Amino acid sequence: MVQVNGNYLKLKAGYLFPEIARRVKAFSEANPAAPIIRLGIGDVTEPLPEACRQAMKAAIDEMGSREGFHGYGPEQGYPWLREAIARHDFQARGCEVSAEEIFISDGSKCDSSNILDILGDDNRIAVTDPVYPVYVDSNVMAGHTGAADERGRYGGLTYLPVTAENGFVAPLPQEKVDLIYLCFPNNPTGAVATKEQLRRWVDYARANDALILFDAAYEAFIREPQLPRSIYEIEGARQCAIEFRSFSKNAGFTGTRCALTVVPKELKGTTASGEAVELWGLWNRRQSTKFNGVSYVVQRGAEAVYSPEGQDQVARLIDFYMENAAIIRRELSAAGLAVYGGEHAPYVWVKTPAGLDSWGFFDALLQKAHVVGTPGSGFGAAGEGYFRLSAFNSRTNVEEAMRRVRAAL
Amino acid sequence: MVQVNGNYLKLKAGYLFPEIARRVKAFSEANPAAPIIRLGIGDVTEPLPEACRQAMKAAIDEMGSREGFHGYGPEQGYPWLREAIARHDFQARGCEVSAEEIFISDGSKCDSSNILDILGDDNRIAVTDPVYPVYVDSNVMAGHTGAADERGRYGGLTYLPVTAENGFVAPLPQEKVDLIYLCFPNNPTGAVATKEQLRRWVDYARANDALILFDAAYEAFIREPQLPRSIYEIEGARQCAIEFRSFSKNAGFTGTRCALTVVPKELKGTTASGEAVELWGLWNRRQSTKFNGVSYVVQRGAEAVYSPEGQDQVARLIDFYMENAAIIRRELSAAGLAVYGGEHAPYVWVKTPAGLDSWGFFDALLQKAHVVGTPGSGFGAAGEGYFRLSAFNSRTNVEEAMRRVRAAL
Repeated sequence: MVQVNGNYLKLKAGYLFPEIARRVKAFSEANPAAPIIRLGIGDVTEPLPEACRQAMKAAIDEMGSREGFHGYGPEQGYPWLREAIARHDFQARGCEVSAEEIFISDGSKCDSSNILDILGDDNRIAVTDPVYPVYVDSNVMAGHTGAADERGRYGGLTYLPVTAENGFVAPLPQEKVDLIYLCFPNNPTGAVATKEQLRRWVDYARANDALILFDAAYEAFIREPQLPRSIYEIEGARQCAIEFRSFSKNAGFTGTRCALTVVPKELKGTTASGEAVELWGLWNRRQSTKFNGVSYVVQRGAEAVYSPEGQDQVARLIDFYMENAAIIRRELSAAGLAVYGGEHAPYVWVKTPAGLDSWGFFDALLQKAHVVGTPGSGFGAAGEGYFRLSAFNSRTNVEEAMRRVRAAL
Repeated sequence: MVQVNGNYLKLKAGYLFPEIARRVKAFSEANPAAPIIRLGIGDVTEPLPEACRQAMKAAIDEMGSREGFHGYGPEQGYPWLREAIARHDFQARGCEVSAEEIFISDGSKCDSSNILDILGDDNRIAVTDPVYPVYVDSNVMAGHTGAADERGRYGGLTYLPVTAENGFVAPLPQEKVDLIYLCFPNNPTGAVATKEQLRRWVDYARANDALILFDAAYEAFIREPQLPRSIYEIEGARQCAIEFRSFSKNAGFTGTRCALTVVPKELKGTTASGEAVELWGLWNRRQSTKFNGVSYVVQRGAEAVYSPEGQDQVARLIDFYMENAAIIRRELSAAGLAVYGGEHAPYVWVKTPAGLDSWGFFDALLQKAHVVGTPGSGFGAAGEGYFRLSAFNSRTNVEEAMRRVRAAL
């Protein structure tokens, strides 16, 4: 019989969101009149910016004539989009990133898991705890871990706990690691890193010949100009970091699908036999062979993000969600809870009240306030005792949810 | 230093299309006035069907309001699209395929290479020769092969030569294999398989517990109702085959990006330790973890393919390209060449004239007729002495190209 990849069997069943859905369903069935407000998932809710919609419709019109038709595009993305990104997102902030180093894709989730295709199987891998589950699951599926223990930690990975005690910035690993996943602004904790904190990581990576996989999907939510939006604002990062970005959370592309990955030309790795190889060439080959580029219409929509109208509309979207986050922070603080994040990220990370663990707080909010959040323990063992609330919802829903939560606490 | 996937170094440099580009460029520079016509690549040229464009624009309008906005969709695709496909493409032809077994993706190239994620590393793999290069390259990258020999054949793969002598339908392997790539209508030979021929493969797979990866990206070009468009028209195929399909070549989605993969619930494989596992669950997990679904706007465009207007517009597109193929067949036959394919596929596979190998014929056509095709040897060692011409171009260009080729021969 054909052999399958047995590593998949090590995966714990997709536990978190199905379990949330199960509890919400059971509650709804028992309380059909309860008006539930969901602040659980990380999906945006507001309309796609007008500039993007107009550009996409114009692109569709182009596709209606033989002259304007676009078939297969470059697997790496159209040069006009890559150039706009290089200019606006990187060069304007003093980062040396060229259009050729930018690879357009259909999602950061895809890229941050597909990147393992070009890496070897014997790297020592560090992740934070709590963590975006895709980083871990993709390594489990690739056979880079052992089995999970009773707390859900997989053998062979180096977990770096991030808690209130260390300001939610991971400590440098005690052992030497080869591959490090960092995400700032962070999902789920909402933490942001300063230049100084990132510099320590870049220095560690360079000293240890390690590679940083830097997820900047939420960079648009950073409100202070001096905070780094890209790891390439740190000197030396071009020698040790790949960066993932997305149009999902800034321009509301979660259902439209466009993202990008930056692979600097300087980056190198080594084969098992010791040969040094450039990562850019490997990723270029991977994308050319296993990917066919992003929809032309969608790329035109992404390009419109960089027009003056697009920039203005995206800024207003971000302001809107961040005002939601401010309301959540303010109201929960007033209710006596310790709140973190939510200042440069759309996630507020809450310490659960004394006597309630993550799932206990989930149940309490659901029962008493009809509000759905995400138990922190679902993101990792060190997330126990925390709870994530998302700022992605209408103003009315956020205000009503906070009224109910305050009344319930 | 971080370890990379050294298997990539076994890949022969992307030889075929860059070499074509190099020769065309050199010729153009030496002969700037020569009006070159390209019948080399497999990209469509005619406008996106109106039904698809209208549906996509309506979807964009929906995205402009909070109520109509679509964020993250199901990773597997929207039910309305999966159901339309199940009904029109499969159930209407008597195939038992349910919506739940259909996974929407952004391309068959992605799916046919990503499918290796869920398979083990110790399968014996059979490919035809000539072959669509992605099947081979994705296995090389996954470490399933040895090095390439001087003819470009990788160690560890079972090559099944397809030539005029066997009617371009691969013979059953002499040795036991676990995984078999089949593509009908075929790229590059344009051959199509009868039900009887596919039945032999299904019987072989069932007798040997093998898995068939069936690429039906060109099924829309089949002109005779009794020829199978899906492998699931063959009894027993649900127990041994995954099928890949695409909107690229029927509805001209090469630049719009939508495809699908069918994974029947009956399919099973085994882990290295002998445990039987359902492939559907593995692929579902793979897609949920490493993919975020296809753009909502694009899925609405694909759904429109199944409207009465969409069906009519797609039929006219196919008729148009197949009339091109008929012209190529007729003119090359009249010029004394042996031609194959092009009757149920957009590719005509030509035997090169005596004394010319594939690249020799390429150079002759370029020099004398200013027509670009694809050397058969680029698709595999057994493609030597053949040449591929594509029917994807305007009528004017196809007729002019054939006039020049006839004059040149």
